[in-house]
Amino acid sequence: MKRITATFLDEITHDIPSQNWGREDWAREFGLYRRIGIDTVVLIRSGYRERCVFAAKSVPDLLPVREDLGRMFLDLAEENGLVLYWGTYDSGVHWMRQSWWREVELNQRFLDEVAERYGSSPAFGGWYLAHEAARHENHIVELFNGIGGHCRSLKDVPVLISPYPMGTKQFAAEHAFTLTETREHWERVFAEAQGAFDICAFQDGQVQYSELEEFHQMVHDIAAGTGVEVWANIESFDRDMPIKFPPADWRYLRTKMEVASRYAARLMTFEFAHFMSPHSCYPSARNLFARYCEEFEIQTDGQN
Amino acid sequence: MKRITATFLDEITHDIPSQNWGREDWAREFGLYRRIGIDTVVLIRSGYRERCVFAAKSVPDLLPVREDLGRMFLDLAEENGLVLYWGTYDSGVHWMRQSWWREVELNQRFLDEVAERYGSSPAFGGWYLAHEAARHENHIVELFNGIGGHCRSLKDVPVLISPYPMGTKQFAAEHAFTLTETREHWERVFAEAQGAFDICAFQDGQVQYSELEEFHQMVHDIAAGTGVEVWANIESFDRDMPIKFPPADWRYLRTKMEVASRYAARLMTFEFAHFMSPHSCYPSARNLFARYCEEFEIQTDGQN
Amino acid sequence: MKRITATFLDEITHDIPSQNWGREDWAREFGLYRRIGIDTVVLIRSGYRERCVFAAKSVPDLLPVREDLGRMFLDLAEENGLVLYWGTYDSGVHWMRQSWWREVELNQRFLDEVAERYGSSPAFGGWYLAHEAARHENHIVELFNGIGGHCRSLKDVPVLISPYPMGTKQFAAEHAFTLTETREHWERVFAEAQGAFDICAFQDGQVQYSELEEFHQMVHDIAAGTGVEVWANIESFDRDMPIKFPPADWRYLRTKMEVASRYAARLMTFEFAHFMSPHSCYPSARNLFARYCEEFEIQTDGQN
Repeated sequence: MKRITATFLDEITHDIPSQNWGREDWAREFGLYRRIGIDTVVLIRSGYRERCVFAAKSVPDLLPVREDLGRMFLDLAEENGLVLYWGTYDSGVHWMRQSWWREVELNQRFLDEVAERYGSSPAFGGWYLAHEAARHENHIVELFNGIGGHCRSLKDVPVLISPYPMGTKQFAAEHAFTLTETREHWERVFAEAQGAFDICAFQDGQVQYSELEEFHQMVHDIAAGTGVEVWANIESFDRDMPIKFPPADWRYLRTKMEVASRYAARLMTFEFAHFMSPHSCYPSARNLFARYCEEFEIQTDGQN
Repeated sequence: MKRITATFLDEITHDIPSQNWGREDWAREFGLYRRIGIDTVVLIRSGYRERCVFAAKSVPDLLPVREDLGRMFLDLAEENGLVLYWGTYDSGVHWMRQSWWREVELNQRFLDEVAERYGSSPAFGGWYLAHEAARHENHIVELFNGIGGHCRSLKDVPVLISPYPMGTKQFAAEHAFTLTETREHWERVFAEAQGAFDICAFQDGQVQYSELEEFHQMVHDIAAGTGVEVWANIESFDRDMPIKFPPADWRYLRTKMEVASRYAARLMTFEFAHFMSPHSCYPSARNLFARYCEEFEIQTDGQN
Repeated sequence: MKRITATFLDEITHDIPSQNWGREDWAREFGLYRRIGIDTVVLIRSGYRERCVFAAKSVPDLLPVREDLGRMFLDLAEENGLVLYWGTYDSGVHWMRQSWWREVELNQRFLDEVAERYGSSPAFGGWYLAHEAARHENHIVELFNGIGGHCRSLKDVPVLISPYPMGTKQFAAEHAFTLTETREHWERVFAEAQGAFDICAFQDGQVQYSELEEFHQMVHDIAAGTGVEVWANIESFDRDMPIKFPPADWRYLRTKMEVASRYAARLMTFEFAHFMSPHSCYPSARNLFARYCEEFEIQTDGQN
């Protein structure tokens, strides 16, 4: 079974409560990542609606931004030898209303500003396309091509996406997709957005545990021959509980990791700081970390 | 930006889980308030349906009450030099069924008992009218006049209310009020309930962040010339998350405080003990406290 | 008022998030139980759908199981002088589809395996019938007779059930049962499943606090003359909050315990580890434990 070697950073969130960490907390967390073999952090989005991780000039009507989290994350990544993938901007509006050109143009201006401010950071090692899609919808191909292509023109580093299957854990039976439907849609997206991204890490929490093997085989098949590398985005929170969302139960997280390890080049997670960290605001995450360390015989000490 | 100098106490709650604090926990908390500049505590309600903070004789069919939280809060307030505003009783029934006279009469008998038991406490420095309203509805004017007037006759100290706007964060678009509608309704309430209350602290969590400036201007305008003092009730929990409710994200709480500081005489919060305290059962509240202390250069030590 | 002397263990759960405890955590917890007078632990179910507490051969399509929680719980119970009631298997499917014979046959094969593996443990002191029912429905009589009878044939130790009333805290007014309806249904179940179980511990969280006295009287009456012993399953979580589910407020938990103590031979709880333990992942549970210890003058020390 593979270890988790990459995690999202979720500081512009829409469904996970803030931990209110300061710089010291993040410094401690990034130090932990280095020690336990996490070498990659992925900023899930650098802006969402009126929020941003820095005081961007290219996005209208932002709320006031006092901190520069972009700089802080890049600096801490550099100090700890981690690679950071930079997540793009999600308006939460334009692409939902099918005005994909607005979403693309806004992102292009925004990413120009990002590249100018942060592009020279030694830790800036990838892009993450923040628009999450489940199928060939919302002009996702135009978004991937328009934004992914622009990213690459600004800084030629790997581009990552993380789609999700419309599985029965998240969607009611009448809306859920079969794996066959998901396969058809994504084969089409992969073909039409060829070259827009280099790595694909499907989310794994929407399908039933009993479907995992078939699901990862499907993802493998979609990517085969396209040149796209497959990672697995192992969700470390639990979708089966009334509380949305607590840390995962180690027993089933391990099961997910075992199956994914047979198919994916790397395991990443959404996300370590809330759901697996010994410093998490969720005490059960601290215990999940203990179980994870037992599994991989990771020595922990008072410093973790 | 102003500091928060008042907080609700929420020990008869209907939507925030109990922290199960004992007297020692509250003593520690009130000591903290003194040290960080919170000089006012507001008991949000002293009774609700069949629950009460003391074994009242005037309310029928109460559940057994073993502790006298009213006494404990007043004593701790006195010890720490805090002023306590006493919240009235909310039947949860009569006024919802438009039988406002029952609500008023029950409260009058109840408040007689309160004044007799607690009125002589040096910390008893205000009344809080527990009936929360969003608009001119549920005979709120009769409630304010009937209960607020009675409070003042028992002990002539300031009377506080805390209404809420029917903003789009809490209400679906087809039910939400525009700020203009809210203004019209509350201008009317202020006029018809003149003299029933002295201070008005609108809740701030129902409107979008982008509406905050206009919202506080509106509240300012409603109160202008009425003699009512405006405070702002800065909600320190997050209404945007699937979990109802976690502590706020410091970045947006600060934004709310900044805007409110330009309009309100004082900032209060609902509420410190759960959502901002270093002793909270929510670990992210402890971090929120750390961020708040950084902002105002409050020295903390092991005692907090 | 009686102490709580029994608790469920909820390691195959469907609505309570995992605490991710390891063996050390459980050893500490069971040691606590011994010290505070909890002499009985009830495994609420040993299997549910595709999950199991051990790698059972008799249940098809299980997820991989690495730990033997059954063995661990029995060993820890033995070490601490506790009695363990073993919970049966719940397919989550067959009985919901009225194919009760499938549920019974699957359980019989499964329980044969359980008895062979674990039946000789000195701590194995009872059975718990995991199928929870609210009324005479889903062929509950056939399930109790078919599974309870088989349990007894494998190992003749007491058999426990824990039904629930369809009270207004859990069910909308149009679906809720009156206490009279609940009484009629369960008199019938008790008569038709005579001999299938020895102990009945109704859940107490679905009825209003004001109905508790009448509720416990009803349970007492149902069991009177049947030879079935009555325990009360005092729920230590709160059903009244938007978050499903936080630890209970001590004031109302105490009220529930006081009423139940007048009718039930013993108080058990669902469940101690999450909602009342000083080691719980819910900090308010740790405070609930402190309040509980104050009430019963239980000395606690750094070891708890």
